[in-house]
Amino acid sequence: MVAIAKPLVLPPNVSNHAFNNFITACRDVGGENIEVISSASQINDGNYMKPNYTHDPHHILKQDFFLASAVVAPRNVADVQTIVKAANKYLVPLWPISIGRNSGYGGAAPRVSGSVVVNMGKNMNKILEVNVEGAYALVEPGVTFHDFHTYLVENNLRDKLWLDVPDLGGGSVLGNTMERGVGYTPYGDHFMMHCGIELVLPSGEVIRTGMGALPHPHEKGGVPPQDQPWNDSAQLFNYGFGPYVDGIFTQSNLGIATKMGMWLMPNPGGYQSYLITIPREDDLKQAVDIIRPLRLNMVLQNVPTIRHILLDAAVLGHKSDYTSDINKPLTDAELDAIAKKLDLGRWNFYGALYGPQPIRDAMWAVVKESFSAIPGAKFYFPEDRKEANSILHTRHKTMQGIPTYDELKWLDWLPNGSHLFFSPISRVNGDDATRQFALTKARCHEAGLDFIGTFTIGMREMHHIVCIVFNREDDEQKKKVVWLIKTLIDDCAKQGWGEYRTHLAAMDQIMDTYSFNNNVFRRFNETIKNAVDPNGILAPGKSGIWPKQYDRRQWKL
Amino acid sequence: MVAIAKPLVLPPNVSNHAFNNFITACRDVGGENIEVISSASQINDGNYMKPNYTHDPHHILKQDFFLASAVVAPRNVADVQTIVKAANKYLVPLWPISIGRNSGYGGAAPRVSGSVVVNMGKNMNKILEVNVEGAYALVEPGVTFHDFHTYLVENNLRDKLWLDVPDLGGGSVLGNTMERGVGYTPYGDHFMMHCGIELVLPSGEVIRTGMGALPHPHEKGGVPPQDQPWNDSAQLFNYGFGPYVDGIFTQSNLGIATKMGMWLMPNPGGYQSYLITIPREDDLKQAVDIIRPLRLNMVLQNVPTIRHILLDAAVLGHKSDYTSDINKPLTDAELDAIAKKLDLGRWNFYGALYGPQPIRDAMWAVVKESFSAIPGAKFYFPEDRKEANSILHTRHKTMQGIPTYDELKWLDWLPNGSHLFFSPISRVNGDDATRQFALTKARCHEAGLDFIGTFTIGMREMHHIVCIVFNREDDEQKKKVVWLIKTLIDDCAKQGWGEYRTHLAAMDQIMDTYSFNNNVFRRFNETIKNAVDPNGILAPGKSGIWPKQYDRRQWKL
Repeated sequence: MVAIAKPLVLPPNVSNHAFNNFITACRDVGGENIEVISSASQINDGNYMKPNYTHDPHHILKQDFFLASAVVAPRNVADVQTIVKAANKYLVPLWPISIGRNSGYGGAAPRVSGSVVVNMGKNMNKILEVNVEGAYALVEPGVTFHDFHTYLVENNLRDKLWLDVPDLGGGSVLGNTMERGVGYTPYGDHFMMHCGIELVLPSGEVIRTGMGALPHPHEKGGVPPQDQPWNDSAQLFNYGFGPYVDGIFTQSNLGIATKMGMWLMPNPGGYQSYLITIPREDDLKQAVDIIRPLRLNMVLQNVPTIRHILLDAAVLGHKSDYTSDINKPLTDAELDAIAKKLDLGRWNFYGALYGPQPIRDAMWAVVKESFSAIPGAKFYFPEDRKEANSILHTRHKTMQGIPTYDELKWLDWLPNGSHLFFSPISRVNGDDATRQFALTKARCHEAGLDFIGTFTIGMREMHHIVCIVFNREDDEQKKKVVWLIKTLIDDCAKQGWGEYRTHLAAMDQIMDTYSFNNNVFRRFNETIKNAVDPNGILAPGKSGIWPKQYDRRQWKL
Repeated sequence: MVAIAKPLVLPPNVSNHAFNNFITACRDVGGENIEVISSASQINDGNYMKPNYTHDPHHILKQDFFLASAVVAPRNVADVQTIVKAANKYLVPLWPISIGRNSGYGGAAPRVSGSVVVNMGKNMNKILEVNVEGAYALVEPGVTFHDFHTYLVENNLRDKLWLDVPDLGGGSVLGNTMERGVGYTPYGDHFMMHCGIELVLPSGEVIRTGMGALPHPHEKGGVPPQDQPWNDSAQLFNYGFGPYVDGIFTQSNLGIATKMGMWLMPNPGGYQSYLITIPREDDLKQAVDIIRPLRLNMVLQNVPTIRHILLDAAVLGHKSDYTSDINKPLTDAELDAIAKKLDLGRWNFYGALYGPQPIRDAMWAVVKESFSAIPGAKFYFPEDRKEANSILHTRHKTMQGIPTYDELKWLDWLPNGSHLFFSPISRVNGDDATRQFALTKARCHEAGLDFIGTFTIGMREMHHIVCIVFNREDDEQKKKVVWLIKTLIDDCAKQGWGEYRTHLAAMDQIMDTYSFNNNVFRRFNETIKNAVDPNGILAPGKSGIWPKQYDRRQWKL
């Protein structure tokens, strides 16, 4: 074996010798699947459109603050077991990724610098099954939303089955679900719509959850567990028997997912997307109070969104297209001008109707009548929007499970545009939404940034996604971004608002806000962590959960 | 303090002295809330209509095989903590119940005889909140489906909100959900529709899950955690931040639930129940294959059921009403006669339509056309069934969340009727359902019993509920019942079918069938169990999960 390069950063308390032993122990994975990050040239690519496996391309701290020591890409489950066993032996922390997007939440970067990124998606990227009768699929970590949609189209299945997609098609179906991401069809709650997971535990053992824990009757002796056929109902019934464990593997560090079942939405037999423009910023209150009962009653059948004008404006142009001074937040007058120019509202509600025409007509009549209570609200179907670039035309795809990359464009709002998501949960309540909007907008402005955001509407809550766009080459602006998210987390916690997901740099702070009864929630999870992963090798610090080998106070950012 | 009576059975490895110390340590709960089971007169009541807190009224082994040493009924969360701390000190196993029904699955009885039953429902029975805007409730363990419905009616809320109910109204909302029970409205998956749990952990600490882990901003210092107001979104968003832990507390032994949020279904603005009679036993295959796409496409909006003729016949009469020899299974000819007499099919499909008239009409047209493919299928609305006792009239209530006790009557199929549920999961697939029916029917007949059963239809699977009715005074028959369920579990496992829930006596056997990769699922759960409950005090053996203090081989039944 050739000499192993010295990584730019070693894992904490791991000698170069131990690291080399770990890499050597992984050699069966194949040299082409092992890359030690020993040179800055391996991380300096600023092109966030390219996959990235070593760091966070949208870095809010220094580019190499969260940095892998090496990337290992297993070819199969046995390779994952090899890596996990080596990690236990040499006490090397692992950071599993699927595709490594997780854009705005840290990308592929590990919480603990020097961790070895386990790139699950590079080689393990097969669609193992698409079951038309049961309307489900079984996928490996590397299957992207785009891949899956292509598969449906190429196999003439698109008229039968849809897969819910998030805003961008490049992410991993499995990875997004493990992070509890959301999409915009009626199947928008990805965790709810998963069914059955196979994981490698920190012990190196392979587990299948739910009905997957029941062997297939054709199981043959001698076949490794991961190669055995799944139980026929493993992708049909989530809960199985005994404790329902799937949830503790999400946003977590208890196992490396190797396969996952996903429910597919049967083609509803009809589809109509629409846009409702809502003229004034203050209309948010009324709009949200209109939405609540409609969503509760499933008149709003999917996960619709209320997008602030600047999210749409950012997809359609650079900030410099709208103002001469990009270094301060846009004024109300400028926002009015943008809304006029784009023929949009200060808020824009993108929804869709599903089902045969009579069903859609009945729903649309209720939706239209309800929103008509907002003076000046306007209603559009895709054919009503004839501009060259129409967000409704993009959402028209997204809300029927057709992945796009169009929304990436809002990153170019600023030069060298990068972004960070701040994602508090809000009640579907006009007062709450208005207060949360006002608070986040004021703080964004204080940081010299625009408020760019959207409310995605679940059954009884909204994921309020504040898109903090910044210039990654502007160190002063990055400092303000760090100040901004830290301040927002504390501001919101004081109001009783918590985040559903976050960037690496904010995980500890957010977990600290979930502080009921002296942080018993975190401590409970750490009790489990230490039992399941006694050597603390798997994703230490993920979601603010640290194994006993790490002193959380030392890792505070 | 008066002398403490000696219980009929002590917990394993607990001396009478230690037991007395435990009872003494619980004395603050109040004498009226502590009952030591020291006399057979405390367990000899055969009336299963009465609540029972000491044993299983539907005992399939000896009546006192699963028996509590004492019952303690905490008045509040602090009392639960007192009991848990005493249990840790004196190593007394606890068996928490809500109302103690869990009918057909063991009632209130503990898996380990001598456990102290913690009767959560006796005093902790308040509806803490009904939130109309958010369509949710927060309940204590003692709130029954019946209680909740009464509350809705008395507060004129029934026209706004429904609570999904199972077949019988007497059970606990919280308890049923922790056991992952199901009901029959569109909100039939109770676990899916819960939101936020408060529990006392085996450590004695109080935890709240999901957004409940985020303190309410009005939290006041010095208020015990359990008395603090909940976060505003604790009953609106399940997942919170970090690992989603709720599932591991279900069918489990990691915490004692003290409060739970439940989502309520907004009144859908219209409702129509219906019955479709399906004439021949062999029609099951076609019926299930008709149901699958309808359910996947949400044309079937709720959790409907296909009930075997004898389930309906048993509600409507005793076996002796239909045959002269109740000691052998009914013949095909007798079943035909019963179907004719009752004007029902061999299978009877009970469903409902929800929403305004145009929606219901559209759905009904599709349902009717689809089922018309079965020769001889007949369609009924409630007004079409004019007999004195109509199952459709009962299901008409159930499927809109109005609890009843009518279905209790099928217990009286045999004299001294008791019952045991065998509940395998089936694909929504005609072949699978037919094979599962044939297998279970043949084994029931072999045991000298009738097949009485129903398929309840979830999104992508069916809970096949085989209702094993027996005479609890007939020891020979009880032996056959034990043989029957043990045989069915093994038979089904060989076909790849597993159960979703079970009686105490079958928990180990069923967990053993979930044997993928050398029972890693059980071992993973036991790793967590031992970490969270190091003294093994909480519900040892629940779902086949034993703490390290118990040798599972010794507890095999």
